[in-house]
Amino acid sequence: MENVVPLALNGLMSAVTYFCTLQAIKKFAPKFLQRGRFGIDLCKSSGDRIPESLGVVTGTCFLVQVFIFIPVLFLLTSAHGVFRHDLLVEILAALLSICSMMFLGFADDVLDLKWRDKLSLPTIASLPLLGVYYVNFNGTTVLVPKPLRFLLGGSLNLGPLYYIYMCMLAVFCTNAINILAGINGLETGQSLVISASISTFSFVEYFLRGELGHVLSLCLMPAFFGTTLALYKFNKYPSKVFVGDTFCYYAGMTFACSAILGHFSKAMLLFFIPQVLNFLYSAPQLFKLIPCPRHRLPFYNRENGLLLPSTTTFRTDTLKPNGVRVLRFLQLFRLVKVEQHQEPHTVEINNLTIINLILVFKGPTNEGELVRLLMRIQIFCSLVAFSCYYAIGQVLF
Amino acid sequence: MENVVPLALNGLMSAVTYFCTLQAIKKFAPKFLQRGRFGIDLCKSSGDRIPESLGVVTGTCFLVQVFIFIPVLFLLTSAHGVFRHDLLVEILAALLSICSMMFLGFADDVLDLKWRDKLSLPTIASLPLLGVYYVNFNGTTVLVPKPLRFLLGGSLNLGPLYYIYMCMLAVFCTNAINILAGINGLETGQSLVISASISTFSFVEYFLRGELGHVLSLCLMPAFFGTTLALYKFNKYPSKVFVGDTFCYYAGMTFACSAILGHFSKAMLLFFIPQVLNFLYSAPQLFKLIPCPRHRLPFYNRENGLLLPSTTTFRTDTLKPNGVRVLRFLQLFRLVKVEQHQEPHTVEINNLTIINLILVFKGPTNEGELVRLLMRIQIFCSLVAFSCYYAIGQVLF
Repeated sequence: MENVVPLALNGLMSAVTYFCTLQAIKKFAPKFLQRGRFGIDLCKSSGDRIPESLGVVTGTCFLVQVFIFIPVLFLLTSAHGVFRHDLLVEILAALLSICSMMFLGFADDVLDLKWRDKLSLPTIASLPLLGVYYVNFNGTTVLVPKPLRFLLGGSLNLGPLYYIYMCMLAVFCTNAINILAGINGLETGQSLVISASISTFSFVEYFLRGELGHVLSLCLMPAFFGTTLALYKFNKYPSKVFVGDTFCYYAGMTFACSAILGHFSKAMLLFFIPQVLNFLYSAPQLFKLIPCPRHRLPFYNRENGLLLPSTTTFRTDTLKPNGVRVLRFLQLFRLVKVEQHQEPHTVEINNLTIINLILVFKGPTNEGELVRLLMRIQIFCSLVAFSCYYAIGQVLF
Repeated sequence: MENVVPLALNGLMSAVTYFCTLQAIKKFAPKFLQRGRFGIDLCKSSGDRIPESLGVVTGTCFLVQVFIFIPVLFLLTSAHGVFRHDLLVEILAALLSICSMMFLGFADDVLDLKWRDKLSLPTIASLPLLGVYYVNFNGTTVLVPKPLRFLLGGSLNLGPLYYIYMCMLAVFCTNAINILAGINGLETGQSLVISASISTFSFVEYFLRGELGHVLSLCLMPAFFGTTLALYKFNKYPSKVFVGDTFCYYAGMTFACSAILGHFSKAMLLFFIPQVLNFLYSAPQLFKLIPCPRHRLPFYNRENGLLLPSTTTFRTDTLKPNGVRVLRFLQLFRLVKVEQHQEPHTVEINNLTIINLILVFKGPTNEGELVRLLMRIQIFCSLVAFSCYYAIGQVLF
């Protein structure tokens, strides 16, 4: 446990970084407006220009803290005669993936790339991570859950499949936060909850159960939490700045790196329950089984300032057979609100995001209240995740 | 010399990357125009919109090649039972500095930051480099040239000063290319000459003289040369794309990383002779001893399509004493063209860049011819550098 002092110092540093980030956002936000990097809040009637892509500023602050922390960590630990070259490699590889994701995310913000590119960018950015995983560990063996061991044995070597799994995990994490977005403070709020959960989890695993792989996430998470908290102060309802794809991408990549190199990717997915549900619920629209409009954020009712679920109207006879099946399935479990139009075969359904689904159940809601509700769900899911991991996980593995 | 095969493979890979980069530039250039990332060529009468910051595309291609090369290198060398953890750390640190420089360079392109920030961005980006240098080597001892040894001894430990030197080197390299710019193809052209020189130098040092530190630059330079050559095809006179600060910054950082981690920073500066001269000549304007207009590129004469030196007009009695001294010094050596205006104490001088100085000596010149001349100077200086290093260097050290 030679890392106690540097890790405590990292916590202190992130408090300093938090205040620096606040100042940096204040200083640079007007610059974004001047240079035309702004968006209009579609869920407000004011039509104000809000600075966009402020993730660039917080991302830079995040990098600076970790850059400064690296020599501190190794100076303090090598005093104990322990020099972990492999840990240095891991931190650098993780930062390289995160930094390329920032760069590509900002390029996406500025150039507004196609959906296809949004999948290839995280794949590119995860290359250093996979390369270093290959060079450093190349461990592609996974434990098989106890109930399945009679079938598959105690462990299973997945080989190249494991690399595909890790790459897909990076693509999922980077896009998951980007999909569950669109209302004030949701991207930063959920990232805060997830990073707090991962920090707690890694803290417990590292200090109480001696899982050394978690040291990486203890290096990255405080800086991420500090900078994101500063961003949240400006991004929360009502937003004074927007975070941009830059933020969503690097946030996801930070989580993916911590989990992959810390060998707790399954546990991490437990903290992504709302994102996973949102992805599964969105899948029919993302994979074009059901028509998908360009924006799926809730519809803003200018008269009373409340949000309603946004909808898509289409002819059911234009759907592919699988689209019809999915729609029937969702109707069966009352997971979609379908309105029959007067024209034959024409229906209007709510767009398939959990934000819209909540609005279907709850009726018209104020934006601030909706975000708070979603945050509460995220926190609740994290608590469930902890219980699952420590109760059920012990039975399964 | 277990690295022969992977390094040869790296050369082949960069040929492939060259063609991929050509395609990528073709594909993405129109996207830059659409999203408003364009500039007007001030040395043409057409007023066409030229896509700006294409360094983002070539930078991404550069990163992808090196990302893919890392596992290849370590797979092939570990077959020989040699696994150089320290080399992996160096490559990752170099890439991290280069990648953060790309990110910050693109942020500068989009947000058009102030002069002060242009100095702080490379400082931030050089942090991982310095951190890893500290952790990996922490060698701050330099050889003293033979003629000075009677005074200082055979070697000198510079301590923290050495880190300041490395940081300033990174700041210098990133900005040097940015300052010697403004006419078509100059940024990419000079980078090509420098990277070809560094490649040749490292090849000789590594394979013929067994200097193992040069393996890093042999890993980075081929990818850089391939992607930059593709960019040059589009950027050369008459430019179809502009490269942006993104390119100038990451090009400089790539050179700085290779030199710092390869321990040949003095030799590298020899390949920067035109940039060093341009910096020294520009210094009076950069440090505000003499008034500096926002743009110092040559003046375009619409009537005959030739370039003339651009000028600055000011009152000599507003200059500080040091400004007056510098001006007298330049006049003494005929390094500036001064025209006395009719109003008392008012003079007009050419802006202090070597591009303008060449135009002063040579008279009105076509842009294409001017670039070719500058390229020839750069190549000539590289040849001089090689001679200096192998002839005079052997005498001095």
